Amino acid sequence: MRDDDVDRSGLAMDRAALQAFLGEAFPQVGADFTVERAAADRVVVALETAERHLRPGGTVSGPTMFALADVAMYLAVLARIGPEALAVTTNVSIDFMRKPPSGARLTCTARVLKLGRVLAVGDALIEAPGLDGPVARASLTYSIPPKR
Amino acid sequence: MRDDDVDRSGLAMDRAALQAFLGEAFPQVGADFTVERAAADRVVVALETAERHLRPGGTVSGPTMFALADVAMYLAVLARIGPEALAVTTNVSIDFMRKPPSGARLTCTARVLKLGRVLAVGDALIEAPGLDGPVARASLTYSIPPKR
Amino acid sequence: MRDDDVDRSGLAMDRAALQAFLGEAFPQVGADFTVERAAADRVVVALETAERHLRPGGTVSGPTMFALADVAMYLAVLARIGPEALAVTTNVSIDFMRKPPSGARLTCTARVLKLGRVLAVGDALIEAPGLDGPVARASLTYSIPPKR
Amino acid sequence: MRDDDVDRSGLAMDRAALQAFLGEAFPQVGADFTVERAAADRVVVALETAERHLRPGGTVSGPTMFALADVAMYLAVLARIGPEALAVTTNVSIDFMRKPPSGARLTCTARVLKLGRVLAVGDALIEAPGLDGPVARASLTYSIPPKR
Repeated sequence: MRDDDVDRSGLAMDRAALQAFLGEAFPQVGADFTVERAAADRVVVALETAERHLRPGGTVSGPTMFALADVAMYLAVLARIGPEALAVTTNVSIDFMRKPPSGARLTCTARVLKLGRVLAVGDALIEAPGLDGPVARASLTYSIPPKR
Repeated sequence: MRDDDVDRSGLAMDRAALQAFLGEAFPQVGADFTVERAAADRVVVALETAERHLRPGGTVSGPTMFALADVAMYLAVLARIGPEALAVTTNVSIDFMRKPPSGARLTCTARVLKLGRVLAVGDALIEAPGLDGPVARASLTYSIPPKR
Repeated sequence: MRDDDVDRSGLAMDRAALQAFLGEAFPQVGADFTVERAAADRVVVALETAERHLRPGGTVSGPTMFALADVAMYLAVLARIGPEALAVTTNVSIDFMRKPPSGARLTCTARVLKLGRVLAVGDALIEAPGLDGPVARASLTYSIPPKR
Repeated sequence: MRDDDVDRSGLAMDRAALQAFLGEAFPQVGADFTVERAAADRVVVALETAERHLRPGGTVSGPTMFALADVAMYLAVLARIGPEALAVTTNVSIDFMRKPPSGARLTCTARVLKLGRVLAVGDALIEAPGLDGPVARASLTYSIPPKR
């Protein structure tokens, strides 16, 4: 789906803005993640897999998949509310379901299910090509700081 | 969607079979739940709300929503593997996001994300008419007993 | 441990006050639960098991164990902040680990791990006599309404 | 508590064995974690904080805390069953409750709550000196491969 086809109604930040924000707010990890798509109802982020993300045997590590889900969901929230760097992860529940093939490019699709005054809740699916189902699923909650 | 339109490929039990199984295996609660749709990729179950499901003020209780998600996911697993009464819930993670309107009919859509030799994992969304998003979401894991 | 031995420093509501509150705020279910102990660091609640709590075979149902953990944690929070009937469960993650023996009396020990301005987080262990470990464990989060 | 005081009944691997296993099985991350204590009922692991573990501002990142809990629980399971490198994390539910002070040394205490034929379930608390409660809590489930 080309950027031109993305429905921007409801979007406070588009793909380019999210990618730039990621690089500025989290310089150590921003380069690991590419924002592939941003829409009001979901954001898709890909992991740029490097040696440091792998366990022996070439499988992507649990903490790396956790980070991918966290970044995707965080950006899905920001896509709705704008560049709020103080939104903080409070809860994550993650299930690891299939071992991603060695060298596979992981993508994570995150959707916001609730955007409240205080909490944002959503879920995310991590996928890799060639599997018969998702690699992992996660549900995540963020606390949103009060407006100044 | 009429029953005739349901894609039965991959289905081990259809809507009628799931409803019958529920009534026989769990007589105390079977009548509380109506299986609305059963397909290989998802099952939809509705709660037949009664006084015992409510908190003061008329809102559906947390344990009732937990039960709805558990039944829907359990049936989604059985729809794939057949009438396995010994499948047991091992983990549930549930987020309560919106208060369902008093008197609303709750429906739960459950999908199986992984059906392994030992574990089945899926997620479920509980919805009510007239809200701008889901009432609750849950992820659930079941252990599947070894075949005799 | 006798009531006299309970350390009341930090307690906003004692055992009797919590039991009374439960009966008044949640009349439909209050009688199912007995507050056995209340201290600033933990609350212990027992389930008064009845037919409606059981699955065929006599095992306590998942929703009932969910309710027990929820009540115990809710009261553990109230024991610290006073009778706040508007505190609402936002997230529960529960693991079912051992089948409780038929007829066993279940007790749940809940402790508050964080009492914030907006969120309270804690965990709970459900136990039954005669087992080599807990029946279930849960972690729970509540949102606390703003003070008037 | 000195090593000599640790109750070794029930321990399949002691502190030194667990540390050695970590370094061999997971060379990329083994050096980040120090096994401080190993007993049959709990294992304590400390994080050797480095630049790569931090977010801007010096706070330990979520994925790093996830990794700390995962390593501590994994070793708590191995302390009971021996060097089983094929045990795999299937589910983690984590709550982030307090921001650890910049430069603080994080320790994680993990305990196994159930050690079944197929699944191991436990919980973990992450702490830092000087706070009035834990930094984070996690519950974790591992699948244990069948014995050859």
